[in-house]
Parts: sequence; C-alpha cells; structure tokens
Amino acid sequence: MGVNWVVLMSGGMDSTAALYWAIAQEGPGVVGLFFHYGSKHNDMEYLSAEYHSKKTGIALEKISLGFINRLYRSDLLISGGNVPEGHYASPSMRSTVVPFRNGIMLSIAAGYAESVGADTIVIANHYGDHAIYPDCRKDFITPMSLAVTKGTAMRVHVLSPFVDDTKDGILDRTRHSGIDWGHTWSCYKGLAKHCGKCGACVERREAFEKAGIMDPTEYEK
Amino acid sequence: MGVNWVVLMSGGMDSTAALYWAIAQEGPGVVGLFFHYGSKHNDMEYLSAEYHSKKTGIALEKISLGFINRLYRSDLLISGGNVPEGHYASPSMRSTVVPFRNGIMLSIAAGYAESVGADTIVIANHYGDHAIYPDCRKDFITPMSLAVTKGTAMRVHVLSPFVDDTKDGILDRTRHSGIDWGHTWSCYKGLAKHCGKCGACVERREAFEKAGIMDPTEYEK
Repeated sequence: MGVNWVVLMSGGMDSTAALYWAIAQEGPGVVGLFFHYGSKHNDMEYLSAEYHSKKTGIALEKISLGFINRLYRSDLLISGGNVPEGHYASPSMRSTVVPFRNGIMLSIAAGYAESVGADTIVIANHYGDHAIYPDCRKDFITPMSLAVTKGTAMRVHVLSPFVDDTKDGILDRTRHSGIDWGHTWSCYKGLAKHCGKCGACVERREAFEKAGIMDPTEYEK
Repeated sequence: MGVNWVVLMSGGMDSTAALYWAIAQEGPGVVGLFFHYGSKHNDMEYLSAEYHSKKTGIALEKISLGFINRLYRSDLLISGGNVPEGHYASPSMRSTVVPFRNGIMLSIAAGYAESVGADTIVIANHYGDHAIYPDCRKDFITPMSLAVTKGTAMRVHVLSPFVDDTKDGILDRTRHSGIDWGHTWSCYKGLAKHCGKCGACVERREAFEKAGIMDPTEYEK
C-alpha cells in the first residue's frame, strides 16, 4: 500500500487532531513525520506522537535536525535559556519561538513526499498561534504552500485544516473523535509532568476550559 | 562584527560566483552555509566551499542533513543508483534531482539568519537549471522568498542574483572577478577527478566553452 498523505506530528494536541482528521479523510495511506531538533520537550513529544501512530497503525518517521539546537537561538531549545511563564500570547513568549520551524518542517516533508510518491502534506498550524509565530500565519502558509507545489515535480499540496481555528475550536471540532488527549504533550519545559505555568500549558488549560471538555492533564502543583 | 548576509554554498561554480558577488555587495558581514546531505560528491564540494571561505576570510557553517540520504530517492545520493551520463537537460538526468533541496536549504538558512540577526539570504539558482529542477525556477523562488519574508519576525529577504542567467552568463558576468574556477566542484560522481561525462560535467564544459573562458578542470580521460 502506498503513502499518499504526510502528516507533521509533534505529539501536541493540534497535530494529533490533524492526524485523526487526515486518517478520516484519506484512510490508511498516511505517514507521520516527527522532528527531533533539540527542544527541551522533544522526548516527551515523541512519546505522544509514537502513542498515536501505534494506536492508529500508521508509520512514523523520526527526523533528526541537530543543527537547530547548535546554531539557532531560542529558549525552547536545550541550548537556550529558561522557559518563561505566563500567557502564550504575551511578548515574553517570543523567546520560545524557533525561527522558521514550520518552513523547515514543510520543506523536508515536501522532499520526502516527492520521494515516497505522496501528494499531500498536512500541517496543524492554527489561528491561535498567530500572535507570536510568523510562520503559523496565513500570509506565510499561503506562499509556502505555493512554493511546495511549484517546487515539486508531482505538485505536492499542503493542507492546513485548522488555519482559521482557535485551539479550543480544534477541540470542539474533534469532540466526537475519541482522541485520548491525555496522551498529548504541550509543556515547553519537558519535565515528567506538565508544569501548568508556561505559555504552552496556559494555552492548553484555556482550550479545554473554553471548549467545555474535561482536561485529563496532570499538572505540577 | 555582525553577520548580515547568509550565502548558500555548495562548492560549485554558481554558488562560488554568488559568494564573491555577495562580498562585493555587502563586505565582510557574510557567512556561508554548506549542507552535507549524503550526495556522492558532497565531500569534494565541501573542499571547494572551504577553499573559498578561507580565501575570502568568511565563516562557513556545515550543516548535516543525514535524513536525506536515508529517506529520499535520488541517484545523486550515496543510497541511490549510478549517476547517468549525458546532457544535463535530458530527462534521464531527472533521476539525480534531490526533491525540494533548494526549499530545504532556504528554510534552514531563514531560521539561521533570524537567529544570528542576518537580514538577507543569497542563493545561486540560475535559468539553466530550470529544465529538470522545479525548485530552481522563478515560479518557485518567488513564493518561497515571500514565505521566508512573511515567516520571519525580522523579514528576511532572499536574493537570487542569477535567476535569469545561464551558467555561461554567470561566467561572463564574473569574468574580471579573479575567481579560481579550478577550486570549484561540479561532477556528480564525486571521484578524485571530474568525470567529464555526467550532466554536471557536460554543463560545466559547455559553460566555459560558450563564455570563451579557459576551463582549468582536469577531467578523466
């Protein structure tokens, strides 16, 4: 059986929702790509991505990008400073941006898709990301998607099904999907439990609350 | 002294010309990025890129992308089949395309530029590449450049000074630059000498001939 769709998976809530969405659209011809780039929470993310790939029976490719931790500046990285606490849309969270990360992941997925004969890439960027992440906004995704299509011989397409959704909107859309949210990872600190205080944890808590869905996450006291 | 421009360097003729062009425009605030991705000629390319970085006194960062040789399909890669011989614009050369390579390199350069505070990336794609490489054409470079600008907080710009030039046109433009073409590498086979028969060698020989410049390359008999 061939691979038709490539889903970018980070083990977070959004890309996990995108995986189940993609499988609902496309069936079994889906493969996941996971990127190990040296973030503090990369290993916890991988456990979640692996859980859902096994549960759904799809293949998951792990791609190492060691140069990011070595050369890039971001407090999300092991080489960076402490992860700030506070609201995810606050300017202080800008220190956790990994520059052009979505562009890098989409580009690698484009070359991979062309190599395995897949015609579609799914990325789970959403509207709630837009405040501090330039590479999550529609005015990035639109030209980037065109570049992927024009720059591949088989005209690979990029789908970003949540580009107009908020994080709670994604939860709302997938209310009846049966996704086990307890096996998704958000916390930027990457300790044994979610810290509950970093931007990613604050956003996660808010999303469950706004969507009226029980938050199964065990946060640090 | 800060870094202002990032030049993609492959050790080939075009990106070497782009390096000297960039230094002429921008002065010493230039850094080179070299990608080690598992092509058969990667090590020979690196020797050439290193030669010109030392000669011009710029820093050269080497970035390893091991996943390409492992996951991508191309006869340019160590994991691929034999490099075909013949004209570089022939359909048989399509087997040497590494899918979306320019997109991947530009994306990584975008994140790197933002991390080091550089506002400009230089890539040496040229018109002669367009026949078999979708990610060298203007209709790829234009949206990709826009994606880089929109997807970075500091609005990084991409310059592709040779996008309308042929390879001999690049030689002609840099006729008085004093570039030592003997220290550039083209041959896809990556043996001790240029083979003279693969698409990259055929293109190289033709460019010197058309530009009326002495070809210093030592080809295999």
